[in-house]
Amino acid sequence: MSSNSKGVEILSIGTELLLGNIVNTNAQWISEQLTHLGLNHFRQSTVGDNCDRIIKVIQEISKRSNLLITTGGLGPTPDDLTTEAIAKSFNVSLFERPYLWDEIKQKLSNSNLQDNSSSLRKQCLFPKNAQIINNPRGTAPGMIWEPIKGFTILTFPGVPSEMKTMWQETALGFIKSKFSDTYSFFSNTLKFSGIGESSVAEKINDLLYLKNPTVAPYANLGEVKLRITARAKNEVEAKIIMKPVREKLEKEFSKFIYGEDHDTLPSVLIKELANRGQSIVFAESCTGGLLSSSITSISGSSQVFQGSIVSYSNELKNSLLNISEEKLEKYGAVSEEVCEAMAINVKEKLGADWAIAISGIAGPNGGSKEKPVGLVHISISGPNNHITNIKKLFNSSRNRIEIQTLSVNLCLNSLRLILLSNS
Amino acid sequence: MSSNSKGVEILSIGTELLLGNIVNTNAQWISEQLTHLGLNHFRQSTVGDNCDRIIKVIQEISKRSNLLITTGGLGPTPDDLTTEAIAKSFNVSLFERPYLWDEIKQKLSNSNLQDNSSSLRKQCLFPKNAQIINNPRGTAPGMIWEPIKGFTILTFPGVPSEMKTMWQETALGFIKSKFSDTYSFFSNTLKFSGIGESSVAEKINDLLYLKNPTVAPYANLGEVKLRITARAKNEVEAKIIMKPVREKLEKEFSKFIYGEDHDTLPSVLIKELANRGQSIVFAESCTGGLLSSSITSISGSSQVFQGSIVSYSNELKNSLLNISEEKLEKYGAVSEEVCEAMAINVKEKLGADWAIAISGIAGPNGGSKEKPVGLVHISISGPNNHITNIKKLFNSSRNRIEIQTLSVNLCLNSLRLILLSNS
Repeated sequence: MSSNSKGVEILSIGTELLLGNIVNTNAQWISEQLTHLGLNHFRQSTVGDNCDRIIKVIQEISKRSNLLITTGGLGPTPDDLTTEAIAKSFNVSLFERPYLWDEIKQKLSNSNLQDNSSSLRKQCLFPKNAQIINNPRGTAPGMIWEPIKGFTILTFPGVPSEMKTMWQETALGFIKSKFSDTYSFFSNTLKFSGIGESSVAEKINDLLYLKNPTVAPYANLGEVKLRITARAKNEVEAKIIMKPVREKLEKEFSKFIYGEDHDTLPSVLIKELANRGQSIVFAESCTGGLLSSSITSISGSSQVFQGSIVSYSNELKNSLLNISEEKLEKYGAVSEEVCEAMAINVKEKLGADWAIAISGIAGPNGGSKEKPVGLVHISISGPNNHITNIKKLFNSSRNRIEIQTLSVNLCLNSLRLILLSNS
Repeated sequence: MSSNSKGVEILSIGTELLLGNIVNTNAQWISEQLTHLGLNHFRQSTVGDNCDRIIKVIQEISKRSNLLITTGGLGPTPDDLTTEAIAKSFNVSLFERPYLWDEIKQKLSNSNLQDNSSSLRKQCLFPKNAQIINNPRGTAPGMIWEPIKGFTILTFPGVPSEMKTMWQETALGFIKSKFSDTYSFFSNTLKFSGIGESSVAEKINDLLYLKNPTVAPYANLGEVKLRITARAKNEVEAKIIMKPVREKLEKEFSKFIYGEDHDTLPSVLIKELANRGQSIVFAESCTGGLLSSSITSISGSSQVFQGSIVSYSNELKNSLLNISEEKLEKYGAVSEEVCEAMAINVKEKLGADWAIAISGIAGPNGGSKEKPVGLVHISISGPNNHITNIKKLFNSSRNRIEIQTLSVNLCLNSLRLILLSNS
């Protein structure tokens, strides 16, 4: 029998979580880690900084689980009660570890720390037989403690960067050696663009009932993902289990799948353009720099991206992109005619192989009956006088940021499809 | 005795939460709502799509709380088990409400729905005396049900947009009338820039111990917030309770406080420039469009923002911004000399009152011993030959996106301080 037969739980401690001041990203991150380790994880709880309530929930968990991961409540302030409450749950006293106090003083060497600065000193108190989880990124250490046989607690601070470092440097090895069985979960996420979640789900309804691998759809704004998860002894075995599903999906959706796992639309485009030795520039109006920054957020973008002109005002469309006042007057800034000229002119002026221009009405103001909020024109200009013009009307219930984000996605995916058909 | 004397709990249902596939933003949103309603909310739980485990946790909660809010598990797929499990928890049967089936058919009028399409039909099954929470944005309704005296359950789908609409249209009124007492919580968040969380916390340590109002610090990347929360009968009373704390903070931190609640650095700047009738343009290198998009993400930015030049390559710094090849050669693109020239030239070329130029090394590649990753030059050019040059070295542990984001914040806050001292 594995020592994980009863399962793992996560307990998040912090009144700020109950007040709704912050989103509990720690629980998600730890859940993901437990999944990769193949551990049975059945339940999560959240309580506030209240000693009695922490004790109650810890005593409950100790009866039904083998391993408890806690986050939060390890700091120096009066509402940091986790270690104290855990000890009280099992009627155990806390003792100071003097070397930890020396470490804290060293870490805070710049501040005027007094030896009687009791609020920080609290962080050196632990049950006698607890193992310390060193905190390289902060002052509050965690602990690994087995208060009763068959039940182990690991404590972490609530600060995500500290928790993650401590997990990776200390906790991961401990959990792997003591709690993981021979099976783990391996995941592969396929990413889709240009197709909605319901269209994807409809076509693969049968796959959603599979047991190993499992297939689960997720959707972000303008993007659908399918996560394929296999339970296997190792990665090679996992790949064999996932293969038939992957092949079926790749056949069914071919050009809608733009990448997998850490790929993003910008990263895929940069890679493709770099392979071709081609460069790109933008002329942005309604997206106001978002298209450029989506590309420049990726390391290595300077290989293909040269720059762009954000011509928010009509004056700059005229002076920087040579769009004549007559054309702006006759067709309006949000028109196929102006957008196409923006693409052609920015490509020539900045001297690139490809150019994308975008002009639209991101709202909430500025819409009219003929040109409502959500109307977007995109023009893509490429080698050999290639021009593609796209007109799109996003749903009027979309807010400004959504329309800008969806517009950027549409620009990137449209160029991806053009490159695909020209490969 | 209020009917909320035992408190409220949130139960999130979904295996995707335990697998770590998604972050539980629903729990945060509902927590925030409960806080505004002044309800005692002591605990949150998360379980997977497993009927026995859902039943167990619901029975536990029914013994210790008055009100349970559940999210997830209301859809048509086989792993949507919430309503069934709740009914089983209290040994109650489910009955179909025929009018709900008609509604679902109407909502899905475009699809070929069969009357025997049992998977969707499941969404019409409810306990006899449950009240339906209409779902205007999806097919799965929720319910308000009091299975035993003094314990009420409200169910919502896991899709955030559906849950929020249902909350606002139906649940909010019900909870207010049945569970809210005469006190509510009112919050005011002061936002800081140019100062770190620990510096803020150190100076106001005494305030962190207050009971009413409470003061809690939070930090995002490059931004610190202090949330002041008062428990009061109404907003006027809350303002009186918060006033002394607000005044103390405003005196202590004056120019570090850039705004409150929904204010952002871009929104505050746009407002200030609009009041002055002044315009702004940018020349961006290392931020690659992010500075521009931070401004254009705000509705109304076209009042003050005219456009910008994203000169990512040295060729474009030369051709679009007239930075001489000699200057680029002599000082390098990341230098005070080049950055100042970028600011002066873009202001003149694009014809604005203010210009910000930024050039730096966002990494992870491209750093050198003299110019390491994290080095950023900012120049601000304004009316009457105003020039401010700023050199900043961000910590090398920062990743690319963080360096870009912190650089944008530094640009915006620097201009804010210049405007403040010129007002």
